[in-house]
Amino acid sequence: MITVHGYAAHDAHSPLVPFTFERREPGPHDVQIDILYSGICHSDLHQARDHWSNALYPMVPGHEIVGRVVKVGAHVTKLKVGDFAGVGCMVDSCRACEACRDDLEQYCAEGATWTYNARERGSDQLTFGGYSDQIVVEERFVVKIPASLDLKAVAPLLCAGITTYSPLRHWQVGPGQKVGVIGLGGLGHMGIKFAKAMGAHVVMITTSPDKGRDASRLGADEVLISRDVDAMAAHAQSFDFLLNTIPVAHDLNPYMALLRRDRTMALVGVLTEIEPPLTGTSLIFGRKSVAGSAIGGMAETQEMIDFCAEHGIVSDVEIVPIQAVNEAYERLLKNDVKYRFVIDMASLRTAVA
Amino acid sequence: MITVHGYAAHDAHSPLVPFTFERREPGPHDVQIDILYSGICHSDLHQARDHWSNALYPMVPGHEIVGRVVKVGAHVTKLKVGDFAGVGCMVDSCRACEACRDDLEQYCAEGATWTYNARERGSDQLTFGGYSDQIVVEERFVVKIPASLDLKAVAPLLCAGITTYSPLRHWQVGPGQKVGVIGLGGLGHMGIKFAKAMGAHVVMITTSPDKGRDASRLGADEVLISRDVDAMAAHAQSFDFLLNTIPVAHDLNPYMALLRRDRTMALVGVLTEIEPPLTGTSLIFGRKSVAGSAIGGMAETQEMIDFCAEHGIVSDVEIVPIQAVNEAYERLLKNDVKYRFVIDMASLRTAVA
Repeated sequence: MITVHGYAAHDAHSPLVPFTFERREPGPHDVQIDILYSGICHSDLHQARDHWSNALYPMVPGHEIVGRVVKVGAHVTKLKVGDFAGVGCMVDSCRACEACRDDLEQYCAEGATWTYNARERGSDQLTFGGYSDQIVVEERFVVKIPASLDLKAVAPLLCAGITTYSPLRHWQVGPGQKVGVIGLGGLGHMGIKFAKAMGAHVVMITTSPDKGRDASRLGADEVLISRDVDAMAAHAQSFDFLLNTIPVAHDLNPYMALLRRDRTMALVGVLTEIEPPLTGTSLIFGRKSVAGSAIGGMAETQEMIDFCAEHGIVSDVEIVPIQAVNEAYERLLKNDVKYRFVIDMASLRTAVA
Repeated sequence: MITVHGYAAHDAHSPLVPFTFERREPGPHDVQIDILYSGICHSDLHQARDHWSNALYPMVPGHEIVGRVVKVGAHVTKLKVGDFAGVGCMVDSCRACEACRDDLEQYCAEGATWTYNARERGSDQLTFGGYSDQIVVEERFVVKIPASLDLKAVAPLLCAGITTYSPLRHWQVGPGQKVGVIGLGGLGHMGIKFAKAMGAHVVMITTSPDKGRDASRLGADEVLISRDVDAMAAHAQSFDFLLNTIPVAHDLNPYMALLRRDRTMALVGVLTEIEPPLTGTSLIFGRKSVAGSAIGGMAETQEMIDFCAEHGIVSDVEIVPIQAVNEAYERLLKNDVKYRFVIDMASLRTAVA
């Protein structure tokens, strides 16, 4: 076994604290990664604090993982020692169902094995995430990171990146289209960068005029303030696609009115009940759709990383030491980050040494 | 002007009563139709009683109209005197917007002109519907009815028929697919007939075991009782398309669980707020969509009529005299009809004579 140092939550109410645990030695298809950076996703906070009533403790969060390969199993072909590698939200799946065969492991019929707050397949062993110095993952669930990218700003691509890239690809966003990205946070800022790089005319849609100031820097062609009724009316029935990244319940109806006939709004953030309620007429008049999308499969995650390398895309990040993770969670609750915290795992090694 | 006899509502609380009014003489592009049959759509009741707070009185309901052409304008090419003709929910639209140019007049950017409870374009003149003995409509909004079809059972095709045919076509229902039709009423019974004729494996999904008895006669291959939790679980993630014809607010989440990945449930009946609320996870896990669909364009309405002629499809109807329309409304409120009331307009002529 490998001894691993990290930070863990032990219950819903206490801060994360240093935690030492063990991981398996790499098997023939496994990759062992020295973790360099680990992004802080809002869902880390939700799970560490058991907001979703499914917490398994001790919990080592983190599913936006970038590091260097230090060991590979005998049958590993995708990566070699010294490569930079990434791990996202999943570390396993059934590999036999239709979704897995279609490279959409996130929709595995048996349920994918999440990187943390889950149990390894066919075992009671908890999975432990990226707030740690080492991880061992089967190569199917590891992506290769080109050395040309700024590694610390790559970490959020593994969740925030693929969560926005995948629906933009699935609904075939491209040149000649007007695309709205609703909500500006970890997901939204990536959605803007991707939609722009795919060639669309990109409108950042936000409740906050303050956030609009970042719009053009991030790549947006226009800003639409959703609380401005006249502005919303001026954009009525003009969008080819809406990527809705808002992570809390909100009124979808005003956004549906922005869509052209036969177009779709994809939800990637709101996991809760949709309130106030959607009305049937928002869908029926104009034959519109509300859809959802979850992260992306491993093949598409690699495609997204390669797309980022090609277009020079990374996340906007603020680097924090692991010792500041609890403070970062508090700031996250106030949306006080542009646009993603990333833990520099060197801070853990220094402390351990 | 043409003097027309019909039945009208004069306020939200009184029964429909005999009403005489005038229609324009047919212009060069108009068709004048002697109305033979007029279906009773549930929306007739809603509008006559002002349930949607948009009633314009006096109101002559009826948008499932079948009759015989008695006069045509000089430029009419589609129909000639003596033909059987149908008129549905619309009698006009802007004809210039993208939707109209795409033969989807129901999504006209300016709003289509509805057959009743509306005003004629550019005029204060109210439109009057099919509970009457004559109607004059521009030929674009008239379909030709093959004489081979049972005319009295054709009337409901003009609304209930096209409302179900159009989404089944749009979402490309066909052989090899498992399709669910949710709700068994005027719309649902047509959805079953169409989906079967298109070659799908059709499952009638209903809350009521009683209604299931009609399933095989209507063409369903299976019946699924939506209140049977075990049966619903057995069908989880197995449907390629769901046509939801339920006309009142209801919980969509159990139906979303029936869909396969990347599939759609189309709403055609529920115009209200969707309560209890849809949850984001019902869409996100499996990349599923909820969509809406409204009737169909005029070209597709003609296609639907021709499809019915080819496949011998008509509605299951109960014929009533116009004098029984108020009683029919009361029975409609109790779902006491299999599956559509149709008014035999000869009853009006007898009374007038």
